Amino acid sequence: MAKSDAFQTNMDVDYVISYRFAKTGKATAVAKFEKLVESLASVGMQTEVRNGGSHSVLLFVRVASDEHLYGEVYRSRVRDWIHGVRAAAPPKETREALEAEPLYEAERLRIIYQLITNPVSEGGAGITPKEGEWENVESLFALHDHAYNKDWIKKWTSSYFLKTEDLDDIRNRLGEKIAFYFAFTQSYFTFLLFPAAFGAAAWLFLGHFSPIYAIVSALWCTVFTEYWKHQEVDLGVRWGVRGVSKIEHKRHDFRHEHIVTDPITGEQVGVFSVTKRLQRQLLQVPFAIAAALLLGTLIATCFGIEVFISEVYGGPLKWLLVFIPTGLLTTFMPILQSVLTKMATQLTEYENYETHAAYQTALTQKIFVLNFITSYLPILLTAFVYVPFGNIIVPHLDIFSVAVQPFAEDEKQLKGPSADWSINPDRLRKQVIYFTVTAQVVNLGMELIVPYLKRRGFAKYKEMQSDRAAKNGGAAPNVALNDPPEDAAFLKRVREEAQLDIYDVTTDIREMVLQFGYLSLFSVVWPLTAVSFLVNDWIELRADAIKICVEMQRPTPWRADTIGPWLDSLSFLTWLGSLTTSALVYLFFNDGLGPDGHPSNIQGWALLLTVFFSEHLFFLVRWGVQIAISKLHSPGLQKERRDRYLVRKQYFEENLNLLEKIPKMAEDAGEISRQSLEEDARAASLKESTPETAFWSRQKGWREVAKVGRGFIERGEVEVSPERKKEL
Amino acid sequence: MAKSDAFQTNMDVDYVISYRFAKTGKATAVAKFEKLVESLASVGMQTEVRNGGSHSVLLFVRVASDEHLYGEVYRSRVRDWIHGVRAAAPPKETREALEAEPLYEAERLRIIYQLITNPVSEGGAGITPKEGEWENVESLFALHDHAYNKDWIKKWTSSYFLKTEDLDDIRNRLGEKIAFYFAFTQSYFTFLLFPAAFGAAAWLFLGHFSPIYAIVSALWCTVFTEYWKHQEVDLGVRWGVRGVSKIEHKRHDFRHEHIVTDPITGEQVGVFSVTKRLQRQLLQVPFAIAAALLLGTLIATCFGIEVFISEVYGGPLKWLLVFIPTGLLTTFMPILQSVLTKMATQLTEYENYETHAAYQTALTQKIFVLNFITSYLPILLTAFVYVPFGNIIVPHLDIFSVAVQPFAEDEKQLKGPSADWSINPDRLRKQVIYFTVTAQVVNLGMELIVPYLKRRGFAKYKEMQSDRAAKNGGAAPNVALNDPPEDAAFLKRVREEAQLDIYDVTTDIREMVLQFGYLSLFSVVWPLTAVSFLVNDWIELRADAIKICVEMQRPTPWRADTIGPWLDSLSFLTWLGSLTTSALVYLFFNDGLGPDGHPSNIQGWALLLTVFFSEHLFFLVRWGVQIAISKLHSPGLQKERRDRYLVRKQYFEENLNLLEKIPKMAEDAGEISRQSLEEDARAASLKESTPETAFWSRQKGWREVAKVGRGFIERGEVEVSPERKKEL
Repeated sequence: MAKSDAFQTNMDVDYVISYRFAKTGKATAVAKFEKLVESLASVGMQTEVRNGGSHSVLLFVRVASDEHLYGEVYRSRVRDWIHGVRAAAPPKETREALEAEPLYEAERLRIIYQLITNPVSEGGAGITPKEGEWENVESLFALHDHAYNKDWIKKWTSSYFLKTEDLDDIRNRLGEKIAFYFAFTQSYFTFLLFPAAFGAAAWLFLGHFSPIYAIVSALWCTVFTEYWKHQEVDLGVRWGVRGVSKIEHKRHDFRHEHIVTDPITGEQVGVFSVTKRLQRQLLQVPFAIAAALLLGTLIATCFGIEVFISEVYGGPLKWLLVFIPTGLLTTFMPILQSVLTKMATQLTEYENYETHAAYQTALTQKIFVLNFITSYLPILLTAFVYVPFGNIIVPHLDIFSVAVQPFAEDEKQLKGPSADWSINPDRLRKQVIYFTVTAQVVNLGMELIVPYLKRRGFAKYKEMQSDRAAKNGGAAPNVALNDPPEDAAFLKRVREEAQLDIYDVTTDIREMVLQFGYLSLFSVVWPLTAVSFLVNDWIELRADAIKICVEMQRPTPWRADTIGPWLDSLSFLTWLGSLTTSALVYLFFNDGLGPDGHPSNIQGWALLLTVFFSEHLFFLVRWGVQIAISKLHSPGLQKERRDRYLVRKQYFEENLNLLEKIPKMAEDAGEISRQSLEEDARAASLKESTPETAFWSRQKGWREVAKVGRGFIERGEVEVSPERKKEL
Repeated sequence: MAKSDAFQTNMDVDYVISYRFAKTGKATAVAKFEKLVESLASVGMQTEVRNGGSHSVLLFVRVASDEHLYGEVYRSRVRDWIHGVRAAAPPKETREALEAEPLYEAERLRIIYQLITNPVSEGGAGITPKEGEWENVESLFALHDHAYNKDWIKKWTSSYFLKTEDLDDIRNRLGEKIAFYFAFTQSYFTFLLFPAAFGAAAWLFLGHFSPIYAIVSALWCTVFTEYWKHQEVDLGVRWGVRGVSKIEHKRHDFRHEHIVTDPITGEQVGVFSVTKRLQRQLLQVPFAIAAALLLGTLIATCFGIEVFISEVYGGPLKWLLVFIPTGLLTTFMPILQSVLTKMATQLTEYENYETHAAYQTALTQKIFVLNFITSYLPILLTAFVYVPFGNIIVPHLDIFSVAVQPFAEDEKQLKGPSADWSINPDRLRKQVIYFTVTAQVVNLGMELIVPYLKRRGFAKYKEMQSDRAAKNGGAAPNVALNDPPEDAAFLKRVREEAQLDIYDVTTDIREMVLQFGYLSLFSVVWPLTAVSFLVNDWIELRADAIKICVEMQRPTPWRADTIGPWLDSLSFLTWLGSLTTSALVYLFFNDGLGPDGHPSNIQGWALLLTVFFSEHLFFLVRWGVQIAISKLHSPGLQKERRDRYLVRKQYFEENLNLLEKIPKMAEDAGEISRQSLEEDARAASLKESTPETAFWSRQKGWREVAKVGRGFIERGEVEVSPERKKEL
């Protein structure tokens, strides 16, 4: 089989399991492998095994018969209906259900994945990669659909905008969770057009720190955030996943304190004390403070050194020494960050959440705090510490002269800032440009090119090793040696895919949210920010597609109806933007810096009043935008309304027969009441007459009531009209 | 029948219609009366007519047969279920349904009321009191249950606290809407105990404007507001009404612009353009501004005159002139207020809402704005204008000297404030005490005693009139003349009840919410506020019960699952409290007034910083309180969870047979897959062999896979272990 053919077919393989036995004894490895194959067979999976090379075998898995799968699909859909994700129960005949609503690829792969990984008690095979008794199962992944991938990338790289149908495609192939990321980024990209155009105009005509730009930008951020919430609901309904985030998935790692009987379901459930968890959650406070201090100190120190060297120091080697802080940052920041991230994860583990959703939310909050500090603190320092208080702080920076002492030629070069030292008003803008252009480009490169180079280098290294081994005489151990020739190309490809990394979509969402933060918090400093992001995000969307297709194993399709806790981060950044933007405008409007670079005429109360006013204006506008957006036409919600209406109608029709059996009040009730009254009257004459029966038997039927009433009305007029009285 | 007997029985009457024909010609009145009686009969109502006196007749209505009513009850419950108010469909046999869940009185009365008033198209009689063709129907009311009322008042006046069972009682008798008012007031009353005790302690030991009291009070307000939200849900579930506010009731008065076909239900529905409504809603802005200006000018003017006379003016008749502003206020304020309320109602009508709920929300918002100005503006003026800026403003108050010129003896008395004039630091406290004690007592009196006196006076007047008529010879026209002697006492009582006012619960809720506002906004000025409210509310709860029983017609029982839009007002006042309290503490802490009564050392930035900090602390605390309260045990939510669980279980059981028919993957799938594989292999040999079939037919069944895998594992070790290689 030629190489190109290997990319044409996946051999009907649903999943591949990479089974690694490097660290296990032979006998155990064999026993566990047998158990693996048997477990898979027990849930109706067919398997084939091939050699995987370097202490691993590849186990190919597919569903043995479609009938089995349909049963699982039906069960999954019934579960959705019971949890309120679907308005109506799925049709009862399986074949019919699947014809009415065909299985899409992501759904198929998700259901098979769950069948393999769900606990045995829930009807799965219980195979959890890398965990517990399945430690040897290194990975469980589906194979890339190369024909589709090729089309996908070709289509996207040749179009400016993505249509909803393109996102539907992603959803059908890679599942809703990844589709939501692309939908979010696409939505953000489209929304960026306006601030990019307006920002360019503001840059040309309005100057820096324009209040007009600030207001428009804050409004835009608010509209975008609220619109995305609306959009999420719409897409959720469109993709039939609205409400899936409410289906709770228990975590395997949850440790209960004791077992109680659920008073409602009667099941035995493990519980963990809420107060105990609260106590553990309180650890977040010292953690956040420590992280802020550590990261803050590092950033502030490097910042101080940088200011000292570039603005105070006048000795030799200045061009070189300027790189010291950058060097320090690039060395220590990743270390510190990975240590803190690890701690955050452990802390979240320790908080012992019952469900995946709660765990993810808690982790995301911590990660967001870390990212917030590293991403925005440098700019915040410049804007709100360096510029307003620079004159007070910079003179103390000569403590850093120790660092450059060896290079100084005379004492003078080391002296503190001279009287004519002044704040560099361009620093803030340069910094914003660095974070919104340079850092974004670097980031994109790191994401795309580095893994590519790494992979290439690794392949080259292996090739060289093989060559060397061949030169040394002994044939290199070749995993492909026993491959059937017709499968060889296919197996080579699968072995390569097994080496790839696992894609984590939350990293990409985080990147977008943090980018949005720059726009919301600081774009007033440099109105071209949105232009840079527009270009960056166009590439980013395509680069992520390529990354998923080339650099990563095919991701397991998960469902989601939101971008999750990042939505809160988005709202938070929008709100914070209303504070920082107004403060920046007040501080720097008209480049209101005095002759020494120090902002002139700054009044504490005026600054606070500006911020206070701006924040409350923001609350008001957000409220208005929320109301306006809630009135927007939503095809998704309309679909949902239609579904629910149909279900109700069906219920009504089912109950109709029954309802008709019950006498309806409006039917000839007059006659009936008359009859029953007459019966009442008879009953009254038979038994003792009560005041009630006497009261109700004076008039018989409505005609008599009307007659008596007419009498009252006619006499009523007599009683009060004096003329008539006289006549009498 | 003795008078006491008249209060013992309601003669099985469900509703009484008071039909008035003073303004209608005799023939029309008779025709309309006939139509009324016929309409009632057509929905299964039995009627009796009696003379009502002064151009009116009394029409007694009851349900002709219980079977009819049960059908209506079943329909109502099915409707609830379809709208999600009930978790499960009601049992299908009517009798059985009613035994499982007996009809409570409020439900019975509500269903009968709806039967009488619902449009004919919805199966009702379409009788809408005072509207359209039913203009003559003056009122439609149920009769008081005097025995119950007596017990109720006796029980409440002899107990300190109300239990949830007492509220259940109210709910069963008067419906959920009124029960929610009492539940809210009771909850508020219980919560008041803490700030009353703490406030008394603060008053004794902490002095005025204590920051500690401010923090505790703000925290308490937040906890109360959030707790009440939790409580609402709980009570809603307890009373089986959770979600009823989502059932939309169309307004009769809604005017559609054009008719469209609903794309979903296919019904013809009238619509009104959203943008047009938005334009109309924008009129609220000028309305609010105009109202604020009008009311504000009145209040500020009276305030200015008062300050002038009491603090600047030194001439004669001062003791009398001081009452000028009070006189002005009590004259003009009610007029202005009633005009503005009328305008607010008309504006809301003009906004043309489709549903009752939307209409009520819009109206409540406007009413709240009006009430906010009249209730809180005087104190806000004193605290934030008079005290800080008094020194600047008061000298200009001599414009008011015109008013007192006639009384002045010499020019000197009219001169502006002398140099030694100083701000009266006690004014703020006195004003708060006035609003939180005097005004509350006056209000309570107005509510309870005035109507009583009015009613008494009216009865006396009528009696005197009769006496005079009797003296003049001609016997007075006596409506009771033709009454059957055994019904006479009963009819007299009904005629009296027909004269009573209609109870509107929203007025009482508004009163409580506004009272809460004083506590949240200003209690830091006078920490005994809560003590005053505690006493007042204990009486208020009982007084409202008496009011309902004695002063008002029996209210029609409506359902509700919340106190409605007032909940937003509550949140708003809590939030605003975080601003005013912190500002008041900053301005007046330690009675920080200078020797001239002017607050000393006030820095704009510090004031703003205090307010800013306090507000954000409030946001943070509220978030924490919301989380904490969401973790609270809620019997209501647990009940709901149980109901939903039972429904799900039932669904599952209904689907179980079906699910078992579908082959389950876990059953002997290994064998099945083997068989199917062998079939596959045969199929492959028959037709052309594809790479896929070839790939999947190398190993047959999981045992073979395991065997081949063992081979790979064993050889795998061989390949990489150099020692073994040498051996080979």
